[in-house]
Amino acid sequence: MCVLMRTVFWDDAACQVKMIDQRVLPARLEIVACASLAEVAEAIRNMTVRGAPAIGASAAFGMALAGLQSTATSRDAWRAELRMSAVHLKAARPTAVNLAWAVDRIMRVVESDQPLAALRQQVLAEAQRIADEDVAINKRMAEWGSTLIDDGDTIIHHCNTGALATVDWGTALGVIRTAHEQGKRIFVLVDETRPRLQGARLTAWELQQYGIPYAIISDGAAGHFLRTGQAQKVFFGADRVAANGDVANKVGTYMLALAAHSNDVPVYAVAPSSSIDLSIQDGSQIPIEERDADEVLNIQVNGERVAPEGAAARNPAFDVTPHACLTAIVTEKGIVRPPFDENLARVLRPDL
Amino acid sequence: MCVLMRTVFWDDAACQVKMIDQRVLPARLEIVACASLAEVAEAIRNMTVRGAPAIGASAAFGMALAGLQSTATSRDAWRAELRMSAVHLKAARPTAVNLAWAVDRIMRVVESDQPLAALRQQVLAEAQRIADEDVAINKRMAEWGSTLIDDGDTIIHHCNTGALATVDWGTALGVIRTAHEQGKRIFVLVDETRPRLQGARLTAWELQQYGIPYAIISDGAAGHFLRTGQAQKVFFGADRVAANGDVANKVGTYMLALAAHSNDVPVYAVAPSSSIDLSIQDGSQIPIEERDADEVLNIQVNGERVAPEGAAARNPAFDVTPHACLTAIVTEKGIVRPPFDENLARVLRPDL
Repeated sequence: MCVLMRTVFWDDAACQVKMIDQRVLPARLEIVACASLAEVAEAIRNMTVRGAPAIGASAAFGMALAGLQSTATSRDAWRAELRMSAVHLKAARPTAVNLAWAVDRIMRVVESDQPLAALRQQVLAEAQRIADEDVAINKRMAEWGSTLIDDGDTIIHHCNTGALATVDWGTALGVIRTAHEQGKRIFVLVDETRPRLQGARLTAWELQQYGIPYAIISDGAAGHFLRTGQAQKVFFGADRVAANGDVANKVGTYMLALAAHSNDVPVYAVAPSSSIDLSIQDGSQIPIEERDADEVLNIQVNGERVAPEGAAARNPAFDVTPHACLTAIVTEKGIVRPPFDENLARVLRPDL
Repeated sequence: MCVLMRTVFWDDAACQVKMIDQRVLPARLEIVACASLAEVAEAIRNMTVRGAPAIGASAAFGMALAGLQSTATSRDAWRAELRMSAVHLKAARPTAVNLAWAVDRIMRVVESDQPLAALRQQVLAEAQRIADEDVAINKRMAEWGSTLIDDGDTIIHHCNTGALATVDWGTALGVIRTAHEQGKRIFVLVDETRPRLQGARLTAWELQQYGIPYAIISDGAAGHFLRTGQAQKVFFGADRVAANGDVANKVGTYMLALAAHSNDVPVYAVAPSSSIDLSIQDGSQIPIEERDADEVLNIQVNGERVAPEGAAARNPAFDVTPHACLTAIVTEKGIVRPPFDENLARVLRPDL
């Protein structure tokens, strides 16, 4: 980003986790400092930070913070505290698997056989590695994914999957950014992505920074552009990929993928291998977070709330796109095509 | 409605067309008075009045107003003026056919062989008949359509098709209202219907008046409810039905219908026969209005505009749902099922 900072980072002097506040962009660029594990968990819950990879890195730094702040004097007491911290953090948001993946990776260090003083530092080092690796992984995904984009493509993109959804560079939007830097002329139709409007709020802002031309559309308008041949590709991220290739992502993804698939427009999910959860057979087993009704009801036009007083709302934050709607899943280890069950398992094999 | 007035009506004392201002509901119930044909056309264009049948009735009253206000002293001069008025009104919005249908019906009176003084009154009488017939037609559609609803159904509904979209009672929402009055227990998932939010703004308000339980959802969330078996029917209106059964309706309808169809959930379009346009073979020939980008960009959260300064948007106001996604089209003359090309033509035969 032109702002030249990571979405999530460790402030060593202050011993704090810092993050760009994604709730007030694009009006203001503000940095939030989290001084405790509880504050990190709350920042994840209230979407100060969002995007599966950015949540993962935030959680890792949150664990590091807890490890450094703990007043435990024995290793066992310290480990017991961090096990509690892990449970607390994992409960912040249920759908994306990167949160649990990052916490589990930290916990492997926590449980390793070293003196307490070393462990405190190594937990922080591991969190830093998770953050650094995220950037490197995103660049690799972008290289793979950019081969799928042709000069002149109009791409429909859902939610925000850019630098702001990760530590830096992004997943699906990182692919688009790399293709743009390769000189391909791209136009992006930006799903505004109700209810939280990550497309209108964050993706549009990022595309402006990168100089990529775009237009925001209502989520329901994507079908019109797909049916009338005005879009050549669909790209989005993934919060969790099941073993069979079913993808949980921001609500609205399923209808977009289905409309593209029905009109023979290729559909690509872009996600690091840490989003793949082979322990889950298919999408029906992925827990779908339902968030507060107010996220749907609180929008205003001309300063006035639109919904009537006392209105009720339902607010599932994610949905599942069946693998049959996907052309490919782009990971840092390569482009995975059907049959997904076989090919996803192969990608996760450590010898590859 | 509990407000006990029609959405559009003729004020004889004032010689004005009056209509409920649908842009400020549900915050305020305000009546707008149109004192000239130009004001009626502008009210249609700026969506003070919206909904294909309500637009049709407004246009008919607008023509009556022009006919009464004309200072022409010869029948030929008067007719020439009204022919100009017809062109002016028809240009206000291109997609719904009811506007042109109502104006053409008025023009048949205008061109009929009677003295000028009589014509002026008969044009008003014809407009009044169009309005009255709309209510009667909606009640008949509601009777037919209510047979499609089962006790306990959760229904997804797009846009607003209630009393506010018509002169009174409504089309798709009228069906739901009649089924509710028959004692069927219904829950409505209300697509908020971006960008103009007719669902969150108007349908939620109407359902509250009728005592029908509902929840507003983001348009993109419908797919989740359909895929997880949480909705049994989908209902919406139609701005124009082509000869083959393709339906133009509020943008977002296509993605909803496709998601329902893909999950074997029945999909019903409800529209008076005046919405059927046999002169158009299929949906590709229906002009799709593109409205101002600001309708997409002007929403706010916490009093702050969400989209960045300088953001661009595309704003098609309608889309086309291919007939293959429809289970049936409900008209006042009965429930039309596939093959739509044959059965729609049969419905429009005057001897039936």
